[in-house]
Amino acid sequence: MIPDGAREVSILPLAGLPELREGDDLAALLGDALVESGGLEEGDVVVVAQKAVSKVEGRVERSDDDLAVILREARNVRRRRDDLVIAETEHGFVCASAGVDRSNAPGDGWIVLLPRDPDESARRLRAALGERFGVLPAVIVSDSFGRAWRQGTTDVAIGLAGFSPLRDLRGTIDARGRALESTIIAVADELAGAAELVCGKTEGVPAARIRGVGLPAGDGSARDLVMPPERDLFP
Amino acid sequence: MIPDGAREVSILPLAGLPELREGDDLAALLGDALVESGGLEEGDVVVVAQKAVSKVEGRVERSDDDLAVILREARNVRRRRDDLVIAETEHGFVCASAGVDRSNAPGDGWIVLLPRDPDESARRLRAALGERFGVLPAVIVSDSFGRAWRQGTTDVAIGLAGFSPLRDLRGTIDARGRALESTIIAVADELAGAAELVCGKTEGVPAARIRGVGLPAGDGSARDLVMPPERDLFP
Repeated sequence: MIPDGAREVSILPLAGLPELREGDDLAALLGDALVESGGLEEGDVVVVAQKAVSKVEGRVERSDDDLAVILREARNVRRRRDDLVIAETEHGFVCASAGVDRSNAPGDGWIVLLPRDPDESARRLRAALGERFGVLPAVIVSDSFGRAWRQGTTDVAIGLAGFSPLRDLRGTIDARGRALESTIIAVADELAGAAELVCGKTEGVPAARIRGVGLPAGDGSARDLVMPPERDLFP
Repeated sequence: MIPDGAREVSILPLAGLPELREGDDLAALLGDALVESGGLEEGDVVVVAQKAVSKVEGRVERSDDDLAVILREARNVRRRRDDLVIAETEHGFVCASAGVDRSNAPGDGWIVLLPRDPDESARRLRAALGERFGVLPAVIVSDSFGRAWRQGTTDVAIGLAGFSPLRDLRGTIDARGRALESTIIAVADELAGAAELVCGKTEGVPAARIRGVGLPAGDGSARDLVMPPERDLFP
């Protein structure tokens, strides 16, 4: 019994992609995986792991000095304890190691950096998939971020195209007729986390298709998800 | 083309529950909604909104002094700016208003508190659903938390039963044969966020069933998700 506005959501892993290298046509490879999985429909969301995007964009380098790379990629360092560096990236995201990471790198001695403009990466994938399938999907570039006060990472959106990442319910009415005073939901981050449930970290599944979510309309950016400095209580 | 270990995940809203009151049999009502939705299978996860649990457990009160209630429910206050209080609850969770909230309350002048022991709430629901359906679901009690540095709330697990909330990949091998050094995924929080995608805040859908996720085995607690004080860089 599904009421109006509440539908079943499905999350499908997009598998079968090869090991990715700089210059690979990620949209074409994702498109092939989508064809294998039944294609695209209006309203679908394609979530792609940051590491896949970074590799095809050549955002990898050989280095044996992680800290030097982290400090170069960071706009500023928020906290540091032993090997752990919590830093703000040039995009404004606050995360461990400024998003720099060796796991799933192209090989030993290689390190993967965040895409320079993950929103632009998402927009390009959206346009190319839209051209192939005749419907424009929402696209999210996701990465695994740690959180203050909570153990473990969850995947969040660091780039996106085709929707607004925040569902603003301020002023809407709850089931009892009471206004929801301060509810803004980070839908894009919930979608990125949901996709992680089928992608895993080790299985070579860099993307997922999510179907059935009513997305907030708009021409959003992952930067909409960044807390502005004047509201940041944990600088 | 779904590889071993990667399956389609489905998220189904559990609707049709009445407005809940203290003493209502939430497990029976969820069970009825599950019957309408095809029942339970081995490995299913039932995610229930904290507000539903708090109401049937009588964790509501009449008050016109939000701040007094927040400070009473808080173990300590981490930050405060105007009306916004970031506080640590007795359970150890750090969130806005110590989890105290007026939206979707039983009526004007009422305020909803967090369950006293959300893990125990989840264990009771798991046992009752297991008795009715012959399979024990994993159960999550979820709430919407804001985050440091990021706009908007995502739903996270504040109580759980029947699995371990963290997928510990330390020492496993990535697609290139390289060890994943520091990867622990907060699966329970990603599940709670995924459920929010179908529940919404205003539609009277207080629960969801998630099928197809390989859960980390264990007898976990939502307290496993709390960063221990010695590792908390944002006290």
